[in-house]
Amino acid sequence: MVQRAIPLPPEGIREASVREAMAIIEREGLASLSLRDVARRLGVSHQAPYKYFPTRDHLLAEIVGRCFDEFGDALEAAIANEPDLDLALMAMGASYLNYAAAHPSHYGLMFTSPLPDKSVHLDMAEKASRAFHVLRRAVLALHLHHGQPEPERRADQDALHLWATMHGLATLLQHDSIKVLGLDQALLQAAPLHAFMSIAAAMIPGGCDDSTL
Amino acid sequence: MVQRAIPLPPEGIREASVREAMAIIEREGLASLSLRDVARRLGVSHQAPYKYFPTRDHLLAEIVGRCFDEFGDALEAAIANEPDLDLALMAMGASYLNYAAAHPSHYGLMFTSPLPDKSVHLDMAEKASRAFHVLRRAVLALHLHHGQPEPERRADQDALHLWATMHGLATLLQHDSIKVLGLDQALLQAAPLHAFMSIAAAMIPGGCDDSTL
Repeated sequence: MVQRAIPLPPEGIREASVREAMAIIEREGLASLSLRDVARRLGVSHQAPYKYFPTRDHLLAEIVGRCFDEFGDALEAAIANEPDLDLALMAMGASYLNYAAAHPSHYGLMFTSPLPDKSVHLDMAEKASRAFHVLRRAVLALHLHHGQPEPERRADQDALHLWATMHGLATLLQHDSIKVLGLDQALLQAAPLHAFMSIAAAMIPGGCDDSTL
Repeated sequence: MVQRAIPLPPEGIREASVREAMAIIEREGLASLSLRDVARRLGVSHQAPYKYFPTRDHLLAEIVGRCFDEFGDALEAAIANEPDLDLALMAMGASYLNYAAAHPSHYGLMFTSPLPDKSVHLDMAEKASRAFHVLRRAVLALHLHHGQPEPERRADQDALHLWATMHGLATLLQHDSIKVLGLDQALLQAAPLHAFMSIAAAMIPGGCDDSTL
């Protein structure tokens, strides 16, 4: 616990609360997060963080929103560097899995833990939606490029499918349930590329046509 | 807490411990599980459950093993009722998602919570492996039916891909991160069928060929 002779300036307390809360989540898990504990660790009055975050969920929503921004930026950067649309989709998939592996606690806050109420924390919901639409735009661009019928409907379906597959890979490849199988390491390492190639094969003309859905 | 004039017979204590432990996990979560608490709730001596489960992990491994048996049986039943191999794979996928939705705490014990050490709890590991191989056999049968080259390698890759996709759907479709997007309900309901059709389209001849991996 840090004790200060002079309290932090208002702007400092807001940012310091976000940083300390993230540190608590990473070290001890989301269940250990409380505004009073954040204040105690910052060496400021118990009331200080409440000036910026009326409730624990307001602080959590700020953190989760920043994670979605960081995550969306990572996906966007992967696409921006790849002019070929098929390769861009794969680069984004690799970027998704790299983010999940490099920032497991951020990933868990976005996609495993319960989120604060979306109808109260609109800014967080908007940042989450933006991250999904980075993925969806890349899928839509591919369907438009290949002149697929109903590109918007296909973009919705394929973006959901791609997201679910990447989430499944990001979580399962780290989990004990796959380790007990004693599968070949090369097989596990090739799993993402195999999944992306399968999805791409189904997306392009001549692949899966489920327009009857 | 149940108090008994006559302690349960040995066989009864083992089964009663498993049932009470599962009830604790479902009501309060895995973190609340302890052998002493199981004994207290059964109204037996604190030592009684230890005669059958030397550690908490031994009790947990027994429970997780039973979940994998139940899950593997559900997957196997879906295949057994469907002679068409492509439809059987979809039926198994539907059965996977139905199991996850109907038994969320069992599903979480197998695929979200950490598992007991596989090198100590070999029976649990064997039951987990059997459930995976129900899925893998269905994929292998499809590749053999279509005369695909390297059917065993393809079965490994496609079984992993199918598992990751179903796990992703099973977890994401219930999570707040998809609810904040305000997507059309019909789109979400069609997501599993779309995923299975995409995967099937990539598996059959003329679909994805990543033999260069």
